[in-house]
Amino acid sequence: MLQALVLPEIRELISTGDSATLHEVLDHWLPADIATLMTRLSDEEDVAVFKLLRGPQRVRIFEYLDRSAQQRLLVSLPEDEAGSLLTDMADDDRTSLLGSLSEVDRTRWLDRLSVEQRALAESLLQYPSDSVGRLMTPHFVCVRPHWTVQHVLDHIRLHGRDSETLNVVYVVDDNHRLIDDLRIRQLLVVDPSKRIKELMDDNFIALHADDEKRSAVEVFRRYDRTAMPVVDGDNHLLGIVTIDDVIDIAERSATEDMHRLGGLEALEDSYANTPILTLVRKRAVWLVVLFLGEMLTATAMGYFEHELATAVVLALFVPLIISSGGNSGSQAATLIVRALALEEIKLCDWRRVLVRELSSGAILGVVLGAIGFFRIALWSTFSTIYGPHWMLVGVTVSVSLVGIVLWGCVSGSMLPFVLKRFGLDPATSSAPFVATLVDVTGLVIYFSVAMVVLRGTLL
Amino acid sequence: MLQALVLPEIRELISTGDSATLHEVLDHWLPADIATLMTRLSDEEDVAVFKLLRGPQRVRIFEYLDRSAQQRLLVSLPEDEAGSLLTDMADDDRTSLLGSLSEVDRTRWLDRLSVEQRALAESLLQYPSDSVGRLMTPHFVCVRPHWTVQHVLDHIRLHGRDSETLNVVYVVDDNHRLIDDLRIRQLLVVDPSKRIKELMDDNFIALHADDEKRSAVEVFRRYDRTAMPVVDGDNHLLGIVTIDDVIDIAERSATEDMHRLGGLEALEDSYANTPILTLVRKRAVWLVVLFLGEMLTATAMGYFEHELATAVVLALFVPLIISSGGNSGSQAATLIVRALALEEIKLCDWRRVLVRELSSGAILGVVLGAIGFFRIALWSTFSTIYGPHWMLVGVTVSVSLVGIVLWGCVSGSMLPFVLKRFGLDPATSSAPFVATLVDVTGLVIYFSVAMVVLRGTLL
Repeated sequence: MLQALVLPEIRELISTGDSATLHEVLDHWLPADIATLMTRLSDEEDVAVFKLLRGPQRVRIFEYLDRSAQQRLLVSLPEDEAGSLLTDMADDDRTSLLGSLSEVDRTRWLDRLSVEQRALAESLLQYPSDSVGRLMTPHFVCVRPHWTVQHVLDHIRLHGRDSETLNVVYVVDDNHRLIDDLRIRQLLVVDPSKRIKELMDDNFIALHADDEKRSAVEVFRRYDRTAMPVVDGDNHLLGIVTIDDVIDIAERSATEDMHRLGGLEALEDSYANTPILTLVRKRAVWLVVLFLGEMLTATAMGYFEHELATAVVLALFVPLIISSGGNSGSQAATLIVRALALEEIKLCDWRRVLVRELSSGAILGVVLGAIGFFRIALWSTFSTIYGPHWMLVGVTVSVSLVGIVLWGCVSGSMLPFVLKRFGLDPATSSAPFVATLVDVTGLVIYFSVAMVVLRGTLL
Repeated sequence: MLQALVLPEIRELISTGDSATLHEVLDHWLPADIATLMTRLSDEEDVAVFKLLRGPQRVRIFEYLDRSAQQRLLVSLPEDEAGSLLTDMADDDRTSLLGSLSEVDRTRWLDRLSVEQRALAESLLQYPSDSVGRLMTPHFVCVRPHWTVQHVLDHIRLHGRDSETLNVVYVVDDNHRLIDDLRIRQLLVVDPSKRIKELMDDNFIALHADDEKRSAVEVFRRYDRTAMPVVDGDNHLLGIVTIDDVIDIAERSATEDMHRLGGLEALEDSYANTPILTLVRKRAVWLVVLFLGEMLTATAMGYFEHELATAVVLALFVPLIISSGGNSGSQAATLIVRALALEEIKLCDWRRVLVRELSSGAILGVVLGAIGFFRIALWSTFSTIYGPHWMLVGVTVSVSLVGIVLWGCVSGSMLPFVLKRFGLDPATSSAPFVATLVDVTGLVIYFSVAMVVLRGTLL
């Protein structure tokens, strides 16, 4: 709200170059708010604002910016300033930014880092871009079982300044293998002379560096943690992941799933920041695939051209019939894709889901079928649009609706399982994808029913 | 994974009543894992498992269960045991469970609580069920500006045991008004004789108790916090909200949006836990609404019955044409709904979006139109299915596709803005809703183009 109100004033200050006032205004703002302000400004304006900022505030704001704004600033700022921003960033944010750059740029910026930072960045960038390893920070408090609580508190006071979180400390053995985690609150509420090993319960949860990012979301959610340790295959403690990164992953995964469900390739950036040609490409791919699939409807319709020519009335209900199948399929696919993503149901549950969808589909089909028949009957009382055999037309439409809605529910709910079974993303079974599948088969169902019911009368 | 492997063994132990072994096995599990196990068991089995559990582990597990399992256990357990579970739960979890019960049950359980707990629950339940007030816990560490850091650390050691988080302490004035928040790490890394007021920067972010839950997600995300204070209109500190609750809200909001985008009412519970009749009801409402809307296609088709009878070839492309409009509309609606939910774009951005969608739609329409024309031309080289005027048919289909895809993009992207403008949920502009809207208008576009292009030849 604040930003929307003062935006014109800020713009005015930028255009008149009144940097003293601008500086004074922004000095009272939180870094996150300045970052939000910058997203509302034009590309030139936000560079201008950023150039005014000083000191530690500057790097905090830079960390809050989205990736495309960070990339733009890296290029727009004098190379020295850009380099020191990169050096001052939190390690996990720096890795994430470096990982988004081209090979050439990445190498160039890596060269500007200190030896330690560079070694760290290179080791983190070895992990696949969608793995937990990329989210790690190596700054955490790590203690030994024989230490006293007081020793740990003193250690934190001396070395804890850089730690990404002080909520949890990690206990490791002589080989730096993780053996327990302790919440800081456990240390703060006991006698400081107690030894760490007396507080340990040997019960801890860790992520693996190779785990997929989005699986980390479920682990954080399930165990209600604010930070989690990351280990390698031999249980060596490599780093920690904090929940602020995970909440971003959760939102991004949900966005990607939604985009796929909506029938397009997931955008990597926000809608507003995606160049229009990328936007068109992401949509065109699926739109063309679906269009090619949907061409089969023209083939199917062509196959029944004789019936259509004999009973034009059949054509009138084609959109109604196929859209009902598409809608029920879209509902089923959405429910199952989301439930699979949240691990509420698993691959092995497909039989249970099939039973549920068969019964839901049958009920929904009968409801729509009844409404459809009623509609045709009602119109036929007042007009002759559906001809003398309107009742048979009504029966054809109703029976087809039951079959098509049932088929929509079954195929919409089973497709995500099939995709997941073959290692594909279940969210690919988008509403438009299922609709296309159901459209083609729906036409076959409709005309087959028509040929049985209307034989000898209309056909 | 673990649970899937041992599930048959656990079931065996339950059915044979071997509680000693079962007890021994579960004793090594984390509470969250036992809760997950229970969701995989039948209703009778999970009550049996739960009855075996003892001590503080029990209430921790109960807190991890989903609401419907909690409700079931409240009823299945002896009233005394259920009452003490409720008493021992964390305050925010208890409020959430009580808020989900019927009026009668709620009153009954409230009577079993201590005077303080009851007063607290009643005060929290006063807030609307979708407000931040319902997520609050009153257990936090609250300090005064004149205290030294050592005083705060001693205070935490004495009183911090119950605090929901020790990551942040809150500084209040004489009237219990919030004046700052300090991260515990700031206290741990300075000289303990420093006074709190020397560490304060008077810059803090607080939620309001009446804020909507889902708006809290954006605040947590933007400011990267693990806990946030909640204040009333006069800035009095009422409680805190922790990020573990917020990550649940984020996932639930995304689920609700996805369900709406998929064309059904959002489920309150998981797919697996929703009774089949509720599931059918949630889907039937929208399916019937869409069906009634889609009936207009039959009316529209009826209006062009003469053209259909004269040129049956037109009917063949009806599904292809209208589905392309629906697909492009579904893509646009999905993109905009999600961007609005994440506040990447705002209501005032509609003009910018309209321009983008007009250009995207035009490009996508031309691509599909070209493919459509090519398909008709190709088929016509090998067959006579589209008659001697196949080129005119091709032109009709292509021109219609451009118009319909453009119209799909525009209506799919603008509908969420319109809904939001009128205070409705933008996610209501689901893929099926937009498809229905575009189907009806798409038919009118198609037949209008046909009447112009085919006049004097086929029509």
